[in-house]
Amino acid sequence: MSFIEVSADCDFPIQNLPYGVFSTKDNHQHKIGVAIGDKILDLSVIKHLFNGPVLNGSQEVFNKPVLNDFMALGYPAWKEARARLQELLGVNCDELKGNAELMSRAFVPMGSATMHVPAEIGDYSDFYASIYHVKNVGLMFRSEENPLPSNWKHLPSAHPGRTSSIVVSGTPIRRPLGQTRPDAKQPPVFGPTKLLDFELEMAFFTGPSSKFSQPINIDKAHEHIFGMVVLNDWTAHDIYAWENLPVAGFLGKNFATTISPWVVPMEALKPFTVPNMEQDPKPLPYLQHNDDYNFDINLEVKLKAHELDRPQNICRTNYKYVYWTAKQQLAHQTINGCNINPGDIIASGSISGPDEGSFGSLLEMNWNRTKNIELAKDVNRKFLEDGDDVIMTAYCQGQGFRVGFGECRSKVLPAIKM
Amino acid sequence: MSFIEVSADCDFPIQNLPYGVFSTKDNHQHKIGVAIGDKILDLSVIKHLFNGPVLNGSQEVFNKPVLNDFMALGYPAWKEARARLQELLGVNCDELKGNAELMSRAFVPMGSATMHVPAEIGDYSDFYASIYHVKNVGLMFRSEENPLPSNWKHLPSAHPGRTSSIVVSGTPIRRPLGQTRPDAKQPPVFGPTKLLDFELEMAFFTGPSSKFSQPINIDKAHEHIFGMVVLNDWTAHDIYAWENLPVAGFLGKNFATTISPWVVPMEALKPFTVPNMEQDPKPLPYLQHNDDYNFDINLEVKLKAHELDRPQNICRTNYKYVYWTAKQQLAHQTINGCNINPGDIIASGSISGPDEGSFGSLLEMNWNRTKNIELAKDVNRKFLEDGDDVIMTAYCQGQGFRVGFGECRSKVLPAIKM
Repeated sequence: MSFIEVSADCDFPIQNLPYGVFSTKDNHQHKIGVAIGDKILDLSVIKHLFNGPVLNGSQEVFNKPVLNDFMALGYPAWKEARARLQELLGVNCDELKGNAELMSRAFVPMGSATMHVPAEIGDYSDFYASIYHVKNVGLMFRSEENPLPSNWKHLPSAHPGRTSSIVVSGTPIRRPLGQTRPDAKQPPVFGPTKLLDFELEMAFFTGPSSKFSQPINIDKAHEHIFGMVVLNDWTAHDIYAWENLPVAGFLGKNFATTISPWVVPMEALKPFTVPNMEQDPKPLPYLQHNDDYNFDINLEVKLKAHELDRPQNICRTNYKYVYWTAKQQLAHQTINGCNINPGDIIASGSISGPDEGSFGSLLEMNWNRTKNIELAKDVNRKFLEDGDDVIMTAYCQGQGFRVGFGECRSKVLPAIKM
Repeated sequence: MSFIEVSADCDFPIQNLPYGVFSTKDNHQHKIGVAIGDKILDLSVIKHLFNGPVLNGSQEVFNKPVLNDFMALGYPAWKEARARLQELLGVNCDELKGNAELMSRAFVPMGSATMHVPAEIGDYSDFYASIYHVKNVGLMFRSEENPLPSNWKHLPSAHPGRTSSIVVSGTPIRRPLGQTRPDAKQPPVFGPTKLLDFELEMAFFTGPSSKFSQPINIDKAHEHIFGMVVLNDWTAHDIYAWENLPVAGFLGKNFATTISPWVVPMEALKPFTVPNMEQDPKPLPYLQHNDDYNFDINLEVKLKAHELDRPQNICRTNYKYVYWTAKQQLAHQTINGCNINPGDIIASGSISGPDEGSFGSLLEMNWNRTKNIELAKDVNRKFLEDGDDVIMTAYCQGQGFRVGFGECRSKVLPAIKM
């Protein structure tokens, strides 16, 4: 229990303690904070209280404008920081709550803070690891008999992504311009995408660097996984389809990627561990691990159509449908010697469940444009319209509390005029 | 003419003045330098001499360990810096050469310096812009009738790449491990790549940031193009082929990318401008520019087989075979609002000429494994062997001088044991 009041449906109880980067109207400096209830604990103000054996000489990491240096410290530091935060925020400890002067400086109301991308992101990899999503895409575009690509159960497929256009929840997304070829008999045309979509993903931030040319053994992979966020991998399907010969997602993807601002530590997800998905065939040894590293995280997408006053829930799914675990993703990412750095982001790919209603993109919900998605009487969608808001949320349900991720939310703005 | 002696076949006369980042045995700090003859002019030592109207308040950019801040200043600053350097290094100016104390501190013998990646590279895009290379790949893997993908003459194809594994010339490359499937009837196997190749490319570094959601107009694109380097886009064809369904180059590419250390300013290439390749069909308006932005840069690849004492020339080609200009690449990269930052790297894709002997990869030289490349009596290659050195060079030939890029060189090391 924390001395900060936290309601049962709040995303940020003492069991969570996610890290983020914020600023306020009065102080534009980017600072590292931890979410607790409806407050942010400013770690730059209490950095001297991290006086355990691991963090004692490294308190300056909490005085930085991004999380990278803290991420770089590694697992023992993350564990010590978390234990110390739970102690300081607990009802039985007076070090923080008994110091009125410190208290007045240490907490910021969440409502008055502006959140920022929490790390300098060096590289971004986007996996394609949720089996029901890949099956859906295969059923629509490949074949009913063999919806999965022949390599898919042997290796976690992925492609590199763009880091410059990763933005934090709340940043509006402008409808991208580009080339498309709606009629294969005519030349390509130029204009705003007509098939703008979201893709519901989860992503993890990496911790300590690995060496150039040196794979990370899968049994050590968790030591490089700092925490997770919700990620919206915006997609312009018509731009993507035309450029996607022979190379994959470039302009159809790289105009924007939105992430939720709070990085939930892996330790906070541990109580929600569920069995890994069964893998048949058994993967090659470098991808094998015996422990469970899958998590029961409820995922939701709401769409607030510009014509309506309230968002409608259009997807309920779960992170547990990711076939390849985060440890497998990281072991695969580095098996060829590709090196990682603190603050890299590695995404799951769109997450869908087995049933209608659990699909993580409009393309799947409208089954490649063959169905309308009804939001209200006379309000339908196939793809996103200008003025629509997409709101993704994620949480683990505990007994009387939830470990949540906050929102990954953005509004679609009209294309610029050229 | 410079007061520093420069031989006619030296890459670094006063007409060049490329920027790089170096350190020395005595001083491990990374510093910005300019190559002149066989010397490096340490800009941190002479930064106070950049006292023109644009740079006067920004001299600190020359005191940084990477070029990003200088790149961010933009075209007027680059122009002023270059003019000032040509003045200071010229025979008629005493400000530098007349100051013995400053002279003794300002120059470092190139042979005693260690070069580094010259910028913090935020994002890396790899285009596929050389027509003869794409034709060769198409002839080998697509069809004799339609070697070019249907979109290829309409848009500059590209994919995102990995920045963490971009290394500077001289860094050894370890043969990557990974999954391959040599026999489609058998399960995939694990081990070192058997089809390790280089790809000869040129790349440019970007200057000032563009805004999120805001395309760069092609008529302003040159203001965001800082300078060029030679780039080796290492490829493991067997890993690539197996993972490349349905998403493109990940582990087959991201284990390493090597660049030459000296960034040659676009102003130094201007005298070697040649007509753009003819483009038919005419591209969409956002890709049209009337000025020539193509360059006569001689490119060579030498291979030093581990069995031989000397490198053999295996490729002579030219940058002018790049179909889509760097301006078109940048306009395309940003048309959807994808933002760039100073120090992004944008590569051309493998460059091949029309004839055998001008192909920019072993895959083309061995025509998909059907031919041996003879290096000497009884010394043949299809792909790279452990201990081989790949040496790429590039230069523009002037009258009595050359504007060169130095070497992009690396040795292949054996795979690690797992």
